[in-house]
Amino acid sequence: MTYPIIFDTDPGVDDAQAIAIALRHPEIELLGMTTTFGNVDVETATHNALLLGELAGKPVPVAQGAACPMVKPRHPAPKHIHGDNGLGNIDLPPVAGQADPRNAAQFIVDTVNQRPGDVSLVAVGPLGNLAAALQIDPSIVTKVKQVVIMGGSIREGGNVTPVAEANIFNDAHAAQKVLTAEWPLTLVGLDVTHRCVLTPQHMERIETAQGELGKVLAGSYAFYRNFYRQALGIDGCCPHDSVALAWLVRPDLFETQRGHLNVVTEGSAEGQTLFAPKGRAFIQDRWSQTPEVDVCLGVDGQAVSNWITDTLS
Amino acid sequence: MTYPIIFDTDPGVDDAQAIAIALRHPEIELLGMTTTFGNVDVETATHNALLLGELAGKPVPVAQGAACPMVKPRHPAPKHIHGDNGLGNIDLPPVAGQADPRNAAQFIVDTVNQRPGDVSLVAVGPLGNLAAALQIDPSIVTKVKQVVIMGGSIREGGNVTPVAEANIFNDAHAAQKVLTAEWPLTLVGLDVTHRCVLTPQHMERIETAQGELGKVLAGSYAFYRNFYRQALGIDGCCPHDSVALAWLVRPDLFETQRGHLNVVTEGSAEGQTLFAPKGRAFIQDRWSQTPEVDVCLGVDGQAVSNWITDTLS
Repeated sequence: MTYPIIFDTDPGVDDAQAIAIALRHPEIELLGMTTTFGNVDVETATHNALLLGELAGKPVPVAQGAACPMVKPRHPAPKHIHGDNGLGNIDLPPVAGQADPRNAAQFIVDTVNQRPGDVSLVAVGPLGNLAAALQIDPSIVTKVKQVVIMGGSIREGGNVTPVAEANIFNDAHAAQKVLTAEWPLTLVGLDVTHRCVLTPQHMERIETAQGELGKVLAGSYAFYRNFYRQALGIDGCCPHDSVALAWLVRPDLFETQRGHLNVVTEGSAEGQTLFAPKGRAFIQDRWSQTPEVDVCLGVDGQAVSNWITDTLS
Repeated sequence: MTYPIIFDTDPGVDDAQAIAIALRHPEIELLGMTTTFGNVDVETATHNALLLGELAGKPVPVAQGAACPMVKPRHPAPKHIHGDNGLGNIDLPPVAGQADPRNAAQFIVDTVNQRPGDVSLVAVGPLGNLAAALQIDPSIVTKVKQVVIMGGSIREGGNVTPVAEANIFNDAHAAQKVLTAEWPLTLVGLDVTHRCVLTPQHMERIETAQGELGKVLAGSYAFYRNFYRQALGIDGCCPHDSVALAWLVRPDLFETQRGHLNVVTEGSAEGQTLFAPKGRAFIQDRWSQTPEVDVCLGVDGQAVSNWITDTLS
């Protein structure tokens, strides 16, 4: 089985590792990356995406996208988590290549239309690029193979507000559009990514095996790990974005539930993903009017951490 | 230890059982009941509260309160859960007594002022009466011993919407006022009440031991149990309101976390309780501006079910 994908990303430490997986895994065909603001500015995201492809010896097209949310002002980038340069403030080698001349939305639309039925969109940042692609060519909903989103939280609570996960909070309007479009979609949120922990031992194996790329992954991980130690009291990191790729290739490691999503765009629960399980009756039917999707609610976290490490070593 | 309480209630099948506990438990001194719309109309709630006191041979003052929410129109009563008469549509004996001439809010204010520092408010329905009491005499925040609320859901998901519990959803504005007032408060929500199941075997013991009162409790339970069997696929009922009294007398059976609550009053997450754990940093501090409260997040459900049954047999 081969999975041709576009990876929509804001690298970002955990994004960088996921990009490495997308470049290395024999069953993943990385058609290109599209970049967005989020963990970093969009220009930094584009720079890092180009750099990671080059370090892996497999440069792929990188198309730059959203610099800010669809509707609201941008929240500050989380520099205490990803560093000023998105990769833990380590020194980075220069980048040789340039971004694709098209913007991210156009790149998505063109690529999906070139290979109808083949392409999976894997998005691990705020969802402005996918929303923009839906706006310029709504027909892609029937042409993508599937859409995999790292974002949201159903039962786990949030990481930037009591209920909201950062990617969804950073552009709730885009998320509402993307999570309720009529395409086959799976949500990979904090309910599962918080069950996966990549330890320093995992990371040592990756560093040893990946040469120059491994140094960048390990160096940025060390910075990211400080955040987890201080904020959550764990020695290790949740590899959020890599978990979306784990779902793509190894869905057998996950438990999903089918139902309907909605995103809160205003008020104190802004950015929350509301999940109405299929067939569950509530006091009104307003939560069950959106298309059916799959939501990850359980995972074998140890197996996913091992899959990540095995892929990269 | 004795706990003088006012029980604010909308009986309701699980309310009826909690009222029986409040009347029977040797450490609880039931100073009176205040009634609200919710599971039933407020007139039905008042009738049932009077009836249950009389069946137990311990009539206590019953003061009628809110007939509808503070701000929004009322949602329909859940007749499929509690029956048209709030007690599973069983035949009920006539009521001899009458309601207190004061309204619920006045009864709360008077009673708390008569015994400053002594009285616990235990509220198991929509929170309009407590909100109204706060409005006519804000000084009660320093005069109550504590406030125990059955309502809300932090991680468990909702029972009337994907995120909202019925009592909070039925009057979110009142809940926001009550859950953020400067009084010592504990939230006993679905995170713990869904861990407690009262089985038919528990109920047989209660029916046998409680005479006429036991017949009403068991008859209404049979109706309520049908709802649980059909909606949730379990043979038994969650004794929501009794769990609030279990917390009052046996807090050792619970795990609580300290933090800040807010209630969503508008939009698709309306009625949700947002919980910001004490000391947890979020992207903004707007979720941590309310007073510190205790929220129940864990419970020994079997021990609570046994405590309920032992109290009533």
